[in-house]
Amino acid sequence: MAEHAGVSAKTVSNVLHNHPYVSATTRETVEASIAALGYRANLSARALASKQTGFIALAIPGLDNPYYSELASHVMDAAAEHDWIVLIEQTRSSEAMEKAVVRGPASQLVDGIILQPDAIGDADLTDRFAHQNLVLIGEAAATASADHVTADSTAAAREVVEHLLEQGRTRIATVGIRPSNRANAGELRYRGYYQALERAGLGVRTEYLAPAERTRRPDGAAAADHLMSLPEPPDAIVCFNDLLASGVLARLRERGVAVPDDVAIAGFDDNEESRFTAPPLTSVAWDLEALGRRCVELLRARTGRTDGDHPPVRTVVGHRLVVRESTAGRG
Amino acid sequence: MAEHAGVSAKTVSNVLHNHPYVSATTRETVEASIAALGYRANLSARALASKQTGFIALAIPGLDNPYYSELASHVMDAAAEHDWIVLIEQTRSSEAMEKAVVRGPASQLVDGIILQPDAIGDADLTDRFAHQNLVLIGEAAATASADHVTADSTAAAREVVEHLLEQGRTRIATVGIRPSNRANAGELRYRGYYQALERAGLGVRTEYLAPAERTRRPDGAAAADHLMSLPEPPDAIVCFNDLLASGVLARLRERGVAVPDDVAIAGFDDNEESRFTAPPLTSVAWDLEALGRRCVELLRARTGRTDGDHPPVRTVVGHRLVVRESTAGRG
Repeated sequence: MAEHAGVSAKTVSNVLHNHPYVSATTRETVEASIAALGYRANLSARALASKQTGFIALAIPGLDNPYYSELASHVMDAAAEHDWIVLIEQTRSSEAMEKAVVRGPASQLVDGIILQPDAIGDADLTDRFAHQNLVLIGEAAATASADHVTADSTAAAREVVEHLLEQGRTRIATVGIRPSNRANAGELRYRGYYQALERAGLGVRTEYLAPAERTRRPDGAAAADHLMSLPEPPDAIVCFNDLLASGVLARLRERGVAVPDDVAIAGFDDNEESRFTAPPLTSVAWDLEALGRRCVELLRARTGRTDGDHPPVRTVVGHRLVVRESTAGRG
Repeated sequence: MAEHAGVSAKTVSNVLHNHPYVSATTRETVEASIAALGYRANLSARALASKQTGFIALAIPGLDNPYYSELASHVMDAAAEHDWIVLIEQTRSSEAMEKAVVRGPASQLVDGIILQPDAIGDADLTDRFAHQNLVLIGEAAATASADHVTADSTAAAREVVEHLLEQGRTRIATVGIRPSNRANAGELRYRGYYQALERAGLGVRTEYLAPAERTRRPDGAAAADHLMSLPEPPDAIVCFNDLLASGVLARLRERGVAVPDDVAIAGFDDNEESRFTAPPLTSVAWDLEALGRRCVELLRARTGRTDGDHPPVRTVVGHRLVVRESTAGRG
């Protein structure tokens, strides 16, 4: 193509990558050659030759949760620095979709995969049909044989409960946080909740562990009804995420329950919305920018590498408790 | 590959598309052949042969607005029915990004593009370097020479203002809705606002047209401060979207302004959040499922077609006003 356009290969590359220091005339010339020669065919041929596709996949439960859409933004930003285009796949936490991500035909189109494995386990992630360049996210370490970027849900939950205890709360309930036979985020947060209560000399009251079918606002509203109908309602509610907490806040308002005077509310994820709820919501903020960047770095480090085995890496990104009016009052 | 595995081509296709009626043994056999032959190379070769890539692009300002993440979900669902994988590109409404989407190297990787053109105009969308299979979304019809799927922002805004007039409001302000020299959504909604006020014999008061630098919650909070500091504050505020309205609600609460008793609030987009704000928010719901499906249908109709010119199609999807407590009270 450079020959066709009468320019250097470097100039063609500059045009393709939209570098600002290419003159308008040169750009026109090169673009005309691209059109004439059919650059699409060249890209496919390049994929054949290099065995790299220029794509990575990000497989998450769904973009309709602000946690995942924000994470996707950070992954796209980090990927762009490595000239990778991100394919987003919504798994809805289904086993079939998660399997398809790691071993279906689309997995053959990408140089690497970032996956939150909610439903599948070690066997599906490590067999010979699974993609070899895999980074797992989420609190559940489904296998020890792939890179894993996570956060410390147990420590974060402990900090939330310790904060509520400091505020004088003793009847601390949860929504979507409970023991499980899978090491998922709800289970890991339950451990922190349990530890903080034990240290304070308070036991776990099982009637205070409200289930949530999904982790959306309507599920939070339903759980609030359940908890406030107990003979001895809680004086604090820790929600698995801010979406559930938003539903709890709305339902308590409808029921005439004052937050935080009657019941304190806390969530996880620190969605932007949580600064604007009535009252503003105490929440755990994760370092999603670091999480996204680290996932892409790990994929890049393994791409095209053939110099032997490298042990899987586990990275824990930071978090902080953001205290707002829903637990601390107007102060 | 079918020959290698000793099965029919149809069976290979069934395995690749995860059809449920393939036996486990057959699946294993075919998958082993896929691994042996290197199906990635085959996919690239197929792209070379068919001139189709199996990808479409969805280019939107950003996934951090629930309107776009919900739309993206619908586009992905519709695309999957046509065996298309969706690449999501975040433009941040920047001219450079929007240009790159329609004519940059990544545009050569997709069979079609769904784009909301916030910054670029007719020239960039129709020149010979632009992708030929383009569907535009959003209220701004940047060119008449591409398919366009939109909604009727002017009618929707008129309905919102008529509803507020029926509630007895007369000092109706706006945030992010104002005249513009571009035919964007803010301009089209301003027309509906203007029409409804004119019909009611009320004029537009320019001090009630609060600007918003972006269309996010913090911008809504700032605009609320501005409007409530006027000598004669409004008794209703129509916000360009629900994110702005969420910021307005939060700031009015901080200022001790009662909603809707002192000021009624309405938004556009009917985000899920808006059923859970305090109070729940009156908003305009668009038929995003129809919008996403229609975009994919239009791309499909033009893909691979060489039988002459087809005039561009314009589709308007439906909307409805969802009245909640923020304008109508608990009554």
